[in-house]
Amino acid sequence: MPRVSEAHLAARRQQILDAAVRCFVRNGFHQTSMQDVIKEADLSVGAFYRYFKSKNELIMAIASTKIAEVTGTLDRLLGLDPMPPLEVFLDEVITQVEATLSADQAVRIAVQVWGEATYDDQVAEVVRDVYGRIRDRMVRAAERAKATGQLPADADAFGVGSAIFGLIQGYILQRVLIGNMDRRTYVDGIRALLRADR
Amino acid sequence: MPRVSEAHLAARRQQILDAAVRCFVRNGFHQTSMQDVIKEADLSVGAFYRYFKSKNELIMAIASTKIAEVTGTLDRLLGLDPMPPLEVFLDEVITQVEATLSADQAVRIAVQVWGEATYDDQVAEVVRDVYGRIRDRMVRAAERAKATGQLPADADAFGVGSAIFGLIQGYILQRVLIGNMDRRTYVDGIRALLRADR
Repeated sequence: MPRVSEAHLAARRQQILDAAVRCFVRNGFHQTSMQDVIKEADLSVGAFYRYFKSKNELIMAIASTKIAEVTGTLDRLLGLDPMPPLEVFLDEVITQVEATLSADQAVRIAVQVWGEATYDDQVAEVVRDVYGRIRDRMVRAAERAKATGQLPADADAFGVGSAIFGLIQGYILQRVLIGNMDRRTYVDGIRALLRADR
Repeated sequence: MPRVSEAHLAARRQQILDAAVRCFVRNGFHQTSMQDVIKEADLSVGAFYRYFKSKNELIMAIASTKIAEVTGTLDRLLGLDPMPPLEVFLDEVITQVEATLSADQAVRIAVQVWGEATYDDQVAEVVRDVYGRIRDRMVRAAERAKATGQLPADADAFGVGSAIFGLIQGYILQRVLIGNMDRRTYVDGIRALLRADR
């Protein structure tokens, strides 16, 4: 039997994931069968199942890839010294969300996973873990902003981090559900809000 | 045949909607059959179908009721003169979201509907319309805040309104998906963010 290279395995795996994204975006997670994905990926059943055994495995693999991109961006921003102001930080994260939306619409699948997590305990646990870790990074950004004086010294970093994360989730939802808004407008809105008078 | 009072019809309709909410929260929209809802509502099949013909009708009725509550709150706040500061406005809206979350978890169903809207064109159209109208009210709040000088005169009201709406959607998602956060913490976070130095 010929040895199959790592690169070949990775390419085949990616081919399947790309096909799954197209199917889920087109028909939703529930209305997509494994057979649909196999057909879309143009593989034999045997070849396919060597990579993924279930739709849950597919969706978790898609999510992990995207989550890794997001946490990578966040960690890079958190590693800068000094960290950019919060509005720049938010702009960078939203820019990456926008790039993902244009590239392959996998963000739309994230919104499906959120719905799934409201009643499927297994999905809920993964989502809670992953989003908890993303929110932790927003909290770290808030702590950095406190340390540099951008935020008041008595600010609750956990609350600020949660609000920052909320702004990003809200951007995703509005882009996916309402459309009719661009990154620039949203980020300008955040800037104006941060400049509000009390 | 005895005349059935309006009150009786409304009560029966509400009994069905409450049963549907319990089913959707427990098993999700897709894994719930009409038969499940009929059983949960403890009605005969004939009696049930006089009120609702499909799951889509059920979910739209649940959504309309909740949406009417939300727009009612928003219109009341927008009707105040002077309008409260934006952070108070946000606090009031989030307080109502929290009340809904504690009362019947219908907010969890909203998150399912969002997922559904990513691939079902009919649901997408309703969601786009409804959330578009809610966001319009946030934009009006931003315009009022500009008029009273709380926001800079050159602020883009559409962008600010979208960001305000984003903060509320983010609150809903984090409460539903991650838990482990209370209203007070989130609103304090928003206040601190509004007090950020540039």
